[in-house]
Amino acid sequence: MSQSYPNIVLRLPDWLDAILPPAEQVYASREERMGLVIDLARQNIQRGTGGPFAAAVFDLNSGKLLAPGVNLVVDGHCSVAHAELVALMLAQQIGRSHDLGGPSQAPCELVTTTEPCAMCLGALPWSGIVSLVCGARDEDAREIGFDEGDKPADWPATLQRRGIEVYRDVCGQKARAVLQQYRDRGGAIYNGRSPN
Amino acid sequence: MSQSYPNIVLRLPDWLDAILPPAEQVYASREERMGLVIDLARQNIQRGTGGPFAAAVFDLNSGKLLAPGVNLVVDGHCSVAHAELVALMLAQQIGRSHDLGGPSQAPCELVTTTEPCAMCLGALPWSGIVSLVCGARDEDAREIGFDEGDKPADWPATLQRRGIEVYRDVCGQKARAVLQQYRDRGGAIYNGRSPN
Repeated sequence: MSQSYPNIVLRLPDWLDAILPPAEQVYASREERMGLVIDLARQNIQRGTGGPFAAAVFDLNSGKLLAPGVNLVVDGHCSVAHAELVALMLAQQIGRSHDLGGPSQAPCELVTTTEPCAMCLGALPWSGIVSLVCGARDEDAREIGFDEGDKPADWPATLQRRGIEVYRDVCGQKARAVLQQYRDRGGAIYNGRSPN
Repeated sequence: MSQSYPNIVLRLPDWLDAILPPAEQVYASREERMGLVIDLARQNIQRGTGGPFAAAVFDLNSGKLLAPGVNLVVDGHCSVAHAELVALMLAQQIGRSHDLGGPSQAPCELVTTTEPCAMCLGALPWSGIVSLVCGARDEDAREIGFDEGDKPADWPATLQRRGIEVYRDVCGQKARAVLQQYRDRGGAIYNGRSPN
């Protein structure tokens, strides 16, 4: 008998559709866009659907949300399902293109509550985004026990050289507070074969 | 109206189930395992379903295939869908765990026709695999125009420090030939915001 394989499926939590503002909502500033994703990260903890991380892709011309993402690693049975990659994959599948920087596409920004791990960092140049906005620092994630992987020392420069603008510490204090809330609740620290 | 988002879905090409050997097939050596994935990469080109890359996750105790993967970036509308990540995500969802290195899990090996790009490299420590087997070198992929991203100079050492064994140049010549075949056919070089 030949083997038959299922599709890979990642499903956003049911609560997400219900709490998002109307699709017409405009997020005019980086702080407003970060405010939304911090709220998603907080909800992901409170509702017990995943790690303390959220992200979203925005259309920079209109200021509208194209695709949200939350960390789905444990419930989605998928170590790749970090919030950033969930948001990027969803935005690309909605737009029916692997390239968010394609010629018929408005410029796209990825907003993430915590700076990307090595995997998500490596994914950014393939995604077509032109802008990355980060809340908490990667060392804040490390401080509560998450492994961020082996990133180049000056990782923002590696993105900037590829035409991706990087904005750090946007609503940094609010973003850090979500990580600390997760630690204080005793949230699971999954993943990571740590170096010896 | 609140927005409603679809699931993220990645589907292996239809030809894959048909050409795979029976699920009971044992791949006893690294070369046999590499032989299978090189064949998948070749088929992915010939059938026009994606880039010249394939990968698979094997159970190292039994030598059996757990999950195959081919590059689905363009047809799957997903810049994340490199062959390595497709195989890892599929193996994890089949096993209903984000961790292929969990306590009830046999040790797992990822076999890939070409050394991983920066994204896939960053994903490996989160996946739970204990062994990585590579065919062509990353410079072979670069030579035909693919961008491999910003990887640490001694990237095998970063994996070995995390308990992942790395085997390079396994059936290297056969693996390189697949890349050259893709270039000779004028296959699309997608993706990548290259550095200035």
